[in-house]
Amino acid sequence: MKQVTVQCPATVANLVCGFDVLGMALDAPFDYMTVTLCDEPGITVTSKDGFPLPTDPAQNTAGAPLIAMLEELNQPIGFEVVIQKQIKPGSGVGSSAASAAGSVVAANHLLGNRFSKADLVRFALFGEKVASGVKHADNVTPCIYGGITLIRSIFPLDIVTIPAPDLHVTVVHPQIEVRTSDARQILRKQVLLKDAIRQWGNIAGLVAGFMKSDYDLIGRSLEDVIIEPVRSMLIPGFDEVKESCKAAGALGGGISGSGPSIFMLSKDQATAASLEKIMKEVYTRIGIDHHTYVTTINQQGVKVIS
Amino acid sequence: MKQVTVQCPATVANLVCGFDVLGMALDAPFDYMTVTLCDEPGITVTSKDGFPLPTDPAQNTAGAPLIAMLEELNQPIGFEVVIQKQIKPGSGVGSSAASAAGSVVAANHLLGNRFSKADLVRFALFGEKVASGVKHADNVTPCIYGGITLIRSIFPLDIVTIPAPDLHVTVVHPQIEVRTSDARQILRKQVLLKDAIRQWGNIAGLVAGFMKSDYDLIGRSLEDVIIEPVRSMLIPGFDEVKESCKAAGALGGGISGSGPSIFMLSKDQATAASLEKIMKEVYTRIGIDHHTYVTTINQQGVKVIS
Repeated sequence: MKQVTVQCPATVANLVCGFDVLGMALDAPFDYMTVTLCDEPGITVTSKDGFPLPTDPAQNTAGAPLIAMLEELNQPIGFEVVIQKQIKPGSGVGSSAASAAGSVVAANHLLGNRFSKADLVRFALFGEKVASGVKHADNVTPCIYGGITLIRSIFPLDIVTIPAPDLHVTVVHPQIEVRTSDARQILRKQVLLKDAIRQWGNIAGLVAGFMKSDYDLIGRSLEDVIIEPVRSMLIPGFDEVKESCKAAGALGGGISGSGPSIFMLSKDQATAASLEKIMKEVYTRIGIDHHTYVTTINQQGVKVIS
Repeated sequence: MKQVTVQCPATVANLVCGFDVLGMALDAPFDYMTVTLCDEPGITVTSKDGFPLPTDPAQNTAGAPLIAMLEELNQPIGFEVVIQKQIKPGSGVGSSAASAAGSVVAANHLLGNRFSKADLVRFALFGEKVASGVKHADNVTPCIYGGITLIRSIFPLDIVTIPAPDLHVTVVHPQIEVRTSDARQILRKQVLLKDAIRQWGNIAGLVAGFMKSDYDLIGRSLEDVIIEPVRSMLIPGFDEVKESCKAAGALGGGISGSGPSIFMLSKDQATAASLEKIMKEVYTRIGIDHHTYVTTINQQGVKVIS
């Protein structure tokens, strides 16, 4: 029986000024997923984590990408998927992407890695479509590639890996619900040209800062004048967390994905740890349950562990 | 008598998807400028090239930056500037920037280089303000720094140099008038968010392409979905030049500055030379006088030659 277990990292999409195009993989939390190759056609997905899952694989974030892969393969085989989710759905750190990316990386491993990473992203997009209605690639791509990735274009798919220096990441997940669809609807369809110019100056600076290992430039470029001012209203405590973290030495940060999680980047672990205290203090005071993570950028993406 | 002569390069601003933030210096054409340090306060600017110039230094593109510099110095000195302009005003390859940048680099040389390059950009912006009413920095910055530069922000000034591989540049200047102020007025104040996202994906890809020396990525990222579709209507022959050049192997290109010049980037000199033929053929057929240049990226910026 051919079987594999993979570890699927959380991811931060909409990386500040890189809305819809820039994402990064995290070294915590992880989902785990065991996939078995079967001689019979068909896909089954089982959850071992207590989170409710659609049982129809076509409606399941891990199932839909495998259906797309099997259609392209056109062979009489199937997969059994067992998910042990630790990335809470709706937290804003790529829970659906971890399922979508994990299932295709695992299946590809069982098939002798016949598909490229870009192919796997293409399949995984079907999972994002099931989860949020939109084929957005800035979670599944870093989940599969690791590191920081740019989606220059989705149609056609154009993936650019962005080298970066060591960065520490602090994440807080306040336990409130922000639906991805609501977070999308709140955005204006038009933006001021002057704001758009500022945004593309910032993303150009951010990419250059990553590639030059210039922490000051990274910090200066971590500014979002378009999305954050609107979406942050959905997240109580956002402004205080951000301002206090920057005052405490964070390079900068913002909303992770469409929220409610907030992430901050730091140059060193000590600063990253101090930001966790600030985040906990703010949400304890406001009275919102929360989880925090102090982690780094995951360089490998989905990893085969057995 | 302390005197210096400088060579000031032409520049391409609004580098395709980098409207208002990305520019590059060219290795042709050049202005020449001789600046003399005087014991008496005051600035005189003389033209030796036949182009009409405002005689009031405060209204002159080379004079206004020197006034700003002298105000900061607060010393009883003055400058005599003699300009030999070869970059035609209104051509869209940074004629005013060459005057503004040249005068402050020359003056700074005479003063023992007491100002930084960023200071010189700050002064040179006063020349751009005189020329076009707007302190835009994406011509004066590459003119002073050389190479490709990103202006992440003007207020405060944040300049990022962008390393790039060898690139060949073909420029055609069709002899029609496009006023910078008209070119600005034609732009919409609001843009679609989806277009802005595409644009910031492209500029991020372009910066990554330059820094990775990835010519294919540079080519794919040289796309402007916001400014070019509007402004290109002011330039007869634009679409044909662009499409024919890309079909002949150009990586891509677009409007230089606010036009009417058009530039194309190529990987090798032979392709760059073949594009010149295409440009000449198009404008000869349309019946518009034109100049062309086949050049490379200038890495030094304004250069002291004697």
